Amino acid sequence: MAKLYYFDGRGRGEIVRLALAAADIPFEEELLRKRDDFLKLVDEGRLLFHQIPLLEIDGKNIVQVNAIVHYIAKKAGLYGKNLDEEVLIDQYYEGARDFMFAFLPIGFAPEKDVLEGPAKKALSKYLPIFEKIASENGSGFLVGKTLSMADVSLLEVLLTAVEYLGIEVLEPYPAVHKLYNGVSSIKQIAAFLKGPQRKRKNDERYVGDVKHILQWE
Amino acid sequence: MAKLYYFDGRGRGEIVRLALAAADIPFEEELLRKRDDFLKLVDEGRLLFHQIPLLEIDGKNIVQVNAIVHYIAKKAGLYGKNLDEEVLIDQYYEGARDFMFAFLPIGFAPEKDVLEGPAKKALSKYLPIFEKIASENGSGFLVGKTLSMADVSLLEVLLTAVEYLGIEVLEPYPAVHKLYNGVSSIKQIAAFLKGPQRKRKNDERYVGDVKHILQWE
Repeated sequence: MAKLYYFDGRGRGEIVRLALAAADIPFEEELLRKRDDFLKLVDEGRLLFHQIPLLEIDGKNIVQVNAIVHYIAKKAGLYGKNLDEEVLIDQYYEGARDFMFAFLPIGFAPEKDVLEGPAKKALSKYLPIFEKIASENGSGFLVGKTLSMADVSLLEVLLTAVEYLGIEVLEPYPAVHKLYNGVSSIKQIAAFLKGPQRKRKNDERYVGDVKHILQWE
Repeated sequence: MAKLYYFDGRGRGEIVRLALAAADIPFEEELLRKRDDFLKLVDEGRLLFHQIPLLEIDGKNIVQVNAIVHYIAKKAGLYGKNLDEEVLIDQYYEGARDFMFAFLPIGFAPEKDVLEGPAKKALSKYLPIFEKIASENGSGFLVGKTLSMADVSLLEVLLTAVEYLGIEVLEPYPAVHKLYNGVSSIKQIAAFLKGPQRKRKNDERYVGDVKHILQWE
């Protein structure tokens, strides 16, 4: 059984949870609430760069989000079927990460400021780009005819945008809207999104945990 | 012939140059000096996310640094020989990128402030970690017995640290020092480092170009 070590919140860990769900890999979680829980992992030498998330899987301790997602994607066949597809998946995955970063400060900065500032700017930049990609590919996925980690990366942003701004935000983008509907309805992804491992919107408790554990204040 | 489009400076583009050199792939460059050069690439639809660097290779227009480096590494056999090695390479590559980011602001902020602030902190965090990895692996490389993109990623930081702070900075870390000497001496890498495609330290001209082209001011 895989085990994820991260805060009790979304942050940088949620893409790992989504990737595990997409890959249909069941996982347990240790949700860190105290600085001592974090220091214990560091002392045990399990956090190579003294950072979380950490994924314990196949007898390995894997850190660095992109490394974790790559590993899951390769194991589960979510990384294309040849080098041509892989390089498209890598580009779309990375672009969607940049897109997502505009939303991560919610709760650390006032929600309204984030939504009307960086998030709004990112939506107007990235949605037309992903609309073109999804529309030209035409399969309901970003690359080829099957789910890949590119779709999972984009899905995280779309879920966030829809949750805060409503489904209307996708209406001018029919191919993205279709991808959102299709990917979020895949059996194991739909089950994750309804289940207890999908984390809450950023709230005071989560923001407090991060600041306490990482000693930001 | 591959062609790289980037500023006339190091920035996010230098790891692509180093990866091409390590892969022994000759490349031309278009060094952007004017905002119109950049807008032309955007208008032509060649910059998927309206960002540089762009690498033209094998008839593709590849953007996003990590996607470009992955592609080069896979083509050139710099990405390990199985999934176990790949996941180590990914983690070390990403950790060395975080390490490098501490140096990127040089010239955008006063050199002294960067070196005595984030760079100093990063050196004391990451050098002991990479020393342990290199020492335990024992081959002069970070993973296995051959060069990988993990070594190339770390090399960029070590070159920068040594250039600004002297070779003394590596003396407490013999395995890292050995890796630095060995990797920078590999024929095609040594040739690149001495040649015209290796860019200058960040200077006023480069910083001015970035600010002008991206309209930061």
